[in-house]
Amino acid sequence: MSGKLIDTAALSGFLELLPEEQLEFDRIKSIIEETYRSFGFIPLDTPLIERSEALFAKAGGETEKQIYFVNKGKDDLTSMALRFDLTVPLARYVANHFNDLSFPFRRYHISRVYRGERPQRGRFREFYQCDIDVIGRDTLSVKYDAEVPSIIYQLFKKLNFGAFTIRINNRKVLNGLLQSFGMVDKAADILRTIDKIEKFENRDDFISSLAEIGLGKDLIDKTISFISIKGSVNNVLSALRNLGVNNPLFEEGVSDLETVTKIMAENGVDESYFMIDLSIARGLDYYTGTVYETRFNDYPELGSICSGGRYDDLASHYTKQKLPGVGISIGLTRLFSKLREIGAITCTQKTSADAIVVPLSENNLTTAMKLANKLRDDGFSVDVLLEDLKVKQKFQYVDKKNAEFAVVIGDDEEASQTAVLQYKEEDSFVKENVSFSELTRRIQDVRQQVRKEV
Amino acid sequence: MSGKLIDTAALSGFLELLPEEQLEFDRIKSIIEETYRSFGFIPLDTPLIERSEALFAKAGGETEKQIYFVNKGKDDLTSMALRFDLTVPLARYVANHFNDLSFPFRRYHISRVYRGERPQRGRFREFYQCDIDVIGRDTLSVKYDAEVPSIIYQLFKKLNFGAFTIRINNRKVLNGLLQSFGMVDKAADILRTIDKIEKFENRDDFISSLAEIGLGKDLIDKTISFISIKGSVNNVLSALRNLGVNNPLFEEGVSDLETVTKIMAENGVDESYFMIDLSIARGLDYYTGTVYETRFNDYPELGSICSGGRYDDLASHYTKQKLPGVGISIGLTRLFSKLREIGAITCTQKTSADAIVVPLSENNLTTAMKLANKLRDDGFSVDVLLEDLKVKQKFQYVDKKNAEFAVVIGDDEEASQTAVLQYKEEDSFVKENVSFSELTRRIQDVRQQVRKEV
Repeated sequence: MSGKLIDTAALSGFLELLPEEQLEFDRIKSIIEETYRSFGFIPLDTPLIERSEALFAKAGGETEKQIYFVNKGKDDLTSMALRFDLTVPLARYVANHFNDLSFPFRRYHISRVYRGERPQRGRFREFYQCDIDVIGRDTLSVKYDAEVPSIIYQLFKKLNFGAFTIRINNRKVLNGLLQSFGMVDKAADILRTIDKIEKFENRDDFISSLAEIGLGKDLIDKTISFISIKGSVNNVLSALRNLGVNNPLFEEGVSDLETVTKIMAENGVDESYFMIDLSIARGLDYYTGTVYETRFNDYPELGSICSGGRYDDLASHYTKQKLPGVGISIGLTRLFSKLREIGAITCTQKTSADAIVVPLSENNLTTAMKLANKLRDDGFSVDVLLEDLKVKQKFQYVDKKNAEFAVVIGDDEEASQTAVLQYKEEDSFVKENVSFSELTRRIQDVRQQVRKEV
Repeated sequence: MSGKLIDTAALSGFLELLPEEQLEFDRIKSIIEETYRSFGFIPLDTPLIERSEALFAKAGGETEKQIYFVNKGKDDLTSMALRFDLTVPLARYVANHFNDLSFPFRRYHISRVYRGERPQRGRFREFYQCDIDVIGRDTLSVKYDAEVPSIIYQLFKKLNFGAFTIRINNRKVLNGLLQSFGMVDKAADILRTIDKIEKFENRDDFISSLAEIGLGKDLIDKTISFISIKGSVNNVLSALRNLGVNNPLFEEGVSDLETVTKIMAENGVDESYFMIDLSIARGLDYYTGTVYETRFNDYPELGSICSGGRYDDLASHYTKQKLPGVGISIGLTRLFSKLREIGAITCTQKTSADAIVVPLSENNLTTAMKLANKLRDDGFSVDVLLEDLKVKQKFQYVDKKNAEFAVVIGDDEEASQTAVLQYKEEDSFVKENVSFSELTRRIQDVRQQVRKEV
């Protein structure tokens, strides 16, 4: 082949993993999928390409500028585009297949989305989202607001990346408080000031800022009391009730928070893993009730690793049917990439095989393949090294792939119907003769032993 | 929300499945993935978007016209595009990460590819390919040519769509035969005539056509003898040897066919599931040795459902390193859609839950959730119906989702620590009281019983 070779690096902003990384990424993705399925969510897998008009109905501001169009390089350049999240496809799907679905409709969706962001460290143009949503028809019980974080709890316990905290709030609380001020027209200004609280040099500046918006002393005191509320779930709930806010929306919000936290505790969520955090707002235009964020206690720099909440109406652009829902999303590509960066994920295995079977010569091929099939029947993943290599090179192959077990078969082994089983135990390297018929049991035993030692 | 509602149908040529179909699609996809993994293949998951120049280096003819470009609607409209297969990304990947990989490199890749074809029945613009390839560094033993169809055999046995035949050929046989004719410059004409054999009204027309190209009587006889070779593997191999072709490439091809079929048989592939079919050519420019096609015996109208072969050099556009390989691909979207069309696939379950737990009233919620968590710990997938519905509506939900088991808990059940377990047995509907502690065992027993009956 003549001519210049083509650039083979993946495009900037697109994550491409080495085998050992991909195996670990897929292991994490499988745990997420199995957990979602274990709660009876069904998989959805909608096309990656959507009608642009469907995306633009929902996108706004920055998102709109980040949309990737798809075309065949001719006329019609902008009618099709890559999705930027999994919520718009869900809305379109539920609207389109409404009569074929039963409600509450529970789906998970683990797939890629696309955002043409300026590439920078930790930002991806292609990334996996792992979403669950429960969609009701006309109504959806607030109990589902409690189930969703219970799933997140189970999931992150299984993922085993260390302690985490699920922070819960309810949009009705803050909205109700502002309603009670009789200053709904100033709500945006007040929220903006509250959001900036950490930027004020002292409390007096903050107070003057609220006064400028038009809040009297009583409302300023109430605001300060409100944003100072912290502590255990019960303390926060009592403090909210003691604020003396007389507003139905506020009361509904507090009552929702009480229901959600009560059911979570009953559902086995350890109370040290969740809290009410009244400062969490999330997507002001979209969420209408419960909102969630989840952070690792030891890696606060990652920010929220799993966020979501309750919305009143999923698909108003696509159907007149009212579809309230609650859901959550994990940005897996960013999560993986950050955890790898800080060393919380290590990637060692370079093969999906539990064992590599090594026939020492051509003569041992048939036996090696038969033994491999037997091990596969017993549930192991097995690679047989078929390449004609020198014995030394064969062991280099085994070494490089870093499989848990090697099973070596030469002429002596054929004669005695035993294999040489090799594996690592702590820091030493073990070789032992195991008869063909005992191989499965021995591998299982070694694994159990190693697990006990760890 | 005012204004016109947006079209919610998926774009033409893009498959979008209902929940019960998606569950079945994913079940099949999982079997494929597990089988690939059980042979020690590692997953790859490269970006869907590639540099266009990388795609165009390999694409040609029709494929090139079908490429979808990706852009942000501004300048640079054609530098990025969606991949049209998984082989080009593999070539780019291996070339790029060459020093980090160990060879033979075994990877599977199950993901979507894009071709902007004119939409028509059974043709998709977005579809899943499920590929495995083994890539050597400089050399790769022909034994891997035998392993690949052995995997296909294991896979389609597990998929259980009925009998199938793996057809094997070797490109060297035909190429060697044509070399031996001393008519390499006419090879394309001869191949075209052979390919059209079924279109000739009688043998004489076929003979004249070969004579026109310039073949003498001896070569015409040899050609006719060659294309008439059929029968068992051993018969075909003997007939090829008895043709009297004196050409090293031809002999190498026959010897490869012998090695491949011998190892397949030794590797446990039932001989009624494969044959040598000398008429199979596949991608004339790409494959250089063994080629495969796989067809269902009962659904010949589907054509080949799994095809591939051996190639000399995977990545000549991207690296100077020689990378021979062998691989195979399944077009899963088309396969699923065709099998569904002819009724070979049925989709009934509408939830991933094995059991739906139904608390009859608010009082039973805590117990229901605890029981569900217990069942999940025991490996079942469980949905708890949390919505505040009338009892009748609760059973409609269970009915619609068509889960295998329902577990009903009311006040009486709480008091006696039993649940009402409901399931279908043949055509009847069974309800029985099972104590909470026995529930897991009872569900396992019922399943085993039902399996025996089926």
